[in-house]
Amino acid sequence: MTKQELVKQIKMKGTFLCVGLDPVLEKIPDFLKEAVVKLEAGKADKNQLTAKQLLSFNRAIIDATAPYCVAYKPNLAFYEAYGVGGTVAYNLTVSYLREFYPNHFIIADAKRGDIGNTAKMYARAIFEGTTSADAITVAPYMGEDSVTPFLEYKDKWVVLLALTSNKGSHDFQMVEDKDGERLFERVLRQSQQWGNDQNMMYVVGATQGRMFEDIRKLVPDHFLLVPGVGAQGGSLEEVCKYGMNSDCGLLVNSSRGIIFASSGEDFAAKAAEKAKELQQQMLAELERL
Amino acid sequence: MTKQELVKQIKMKGTFLCVGLDPVLEKIPDFLKEAVVKLEAGKADKNQLTAKQLLSFNRAIIDATAPYCVAYKPNLAFYEAYGVGGTVAYNLTVSYLREFYPNHFIIADAKRGDIGNTAKMYARAIFEGTTSADAITVAPYMGEDSVTPFLEYKDKWVVLLALTSNKGSHDFQMVEDKDGERLFERVLRQSQQWGNDQNMMYVVGATQGRMFEDIRKLVPDHFLLVPGVGAQGGSLEEVCKYGMNSDCGLLVNSSRGIIFASSGEDFAAKAAEKAKELQQQMLAELERL
Repeated sequence: MTKQELVKQIKMKGTFLCVGLDPVLEKIPDFLKEAVVKLEAGKADKNQLTAKQLLSFNRAIIDATAPYCVAYKPNLAFYEAYGVGGTVAYNLTVSYLREFYPNHFIIADAKRGDIGNTAKMYARAIFEGTTSADAITVAPYMGEDSVTPFLEYKDKWVVLLALTSNKGSHDFQMVEDKDGERLFERVLRQSQQWGNDQNMMYVVGATQGRMFEDIRKLVPDHFLLVPGVGAQGGSLEEVCKYGMNSDCGLLVNSSRGIIFASSGEDFAAKAAEKAKELQQQMLAELERL
Repeated sequence: MTKQELVKQIKMKGTFLCVGLDPVLEKIPDFLKEAVVKLEAGKADKNQLTAKQLLSFNRAIIDATAPYCVAYKPNLAFYEAYGVGGTVAYNLTVSYLREFYPNHFIIADAKRGDIGNTAKMYARAIFEGTTSADAITVAPYMGEDSVTPFLEYKDKWVVLLALTSNKGSHDFQMVEDKDGERLFERVLRQSQQWGNDQNMMYVVGATQGRMFEDIRKLVPDHFLLVPGVGAQGGSLEEVCKYGMNSDCGLLVNSSRGIIFASSGEDFAAKAAEKAKELQQQMLAELERL
């Protein structure tokens, strides 16, 4: 998906919400898991059963939240934890999105980063075939040749980690060099030699508040993927105040706050409710543009 | 596996070689791929066929090289690139090693790094169940809470990226802070608060030559996982001269130089030959201890 298409979707739907599809088997409502077991009675092996349980949860969440968001972000860890069944579930989830929601942007949250030769294989895994995502999150520690192989794909995106939402972000990302430049600022500055605002975004945690001002000085035009609203305590209002640009320039992610809003039979309805609440706040912010 | 057990294996076998199991379908000898197709005639689906082709290559490499190495390092990218078939191949490869080579150390080269909640899921993927590796490579960019969830498993290891073998290692890892400390040095120093030499190793590229001296000042006792010998041009002699400690303290990896030493019917014999060459050099280095 191009930047122009993404911006169009955001303005048309009045939302820049990204829903994190991070299913945890233990947290999926029992009635849903049991329904899958009944449907598959005796047929499926364990991996297929797991895959179908994860998929049926994801499908319900997607169908319920699609009107209120422009993007979905499956985090690969939540699929890899279930082995082969998880891999199947990831593939089926992306296929389902591609088939029924072709205008939604798909971010494979993988935080990969390896030497060029290996990065090419990761790019193949995420960007080729029928289960191709629009974007992948990438860690910058290994530098240029760990990032550029992903940029060789047309209309695909690298979402580079800059300043993350977690406590550990202070360990290295905030370290100042001799000239007072912090590591995340160097990442923002230097990576602009590798790509541009048409094929790169940056992860900036919602918990970072006014740091968005500093970040916008370095990357005024790029989209920022913002996790940390909701369960991690970031403020949407603050993110918008300091981070929004004239194209919106933000994809704000919420995972647990939406997908696990309820563990009962109303889980999808509650997810829709939470997504709609965020969409309404986002609409108000967009109207100020 | 404990550090004591690893050191015992190294000294007993006279080698600290780690063989990188990074199969590429296009590079696997045709005769081997065709043999699998014939064996599976009409039975297997595409994913199963891919899995069995990758596995039959890995098994031949493992059987040929096991006497000359103490560790195997499958890089996850080379499995994920083949989707479900790749995931099955990874699992079967680890199971095969566990079953037939229980004294070999298994490093899942995944270079993961995510917030605590997500890191727990990656740890589950790599360290739990029947396909459990001994170690996982982890990227440090996101700091403490992205690393510590992996350290909660008994006798399992984090191999943290410090100074990598690629050109991009200069982009961020070598940046000096106000006190002249380089980022990789800060990673080495700070991460010692999270684990110790019994559950953490560090990745230091063989291409970094005399930097091993600086690194040993910070981590005299830790094992270092050293990629970059062979295809990437690093020197084993230099690595040993500046990086070895009294426990050996090194696992030197070679992937392409061994597994793709020949593309003919002699690929396994050639892999054994290359592995033995390295083992002989390593034996000479160990005898100097």
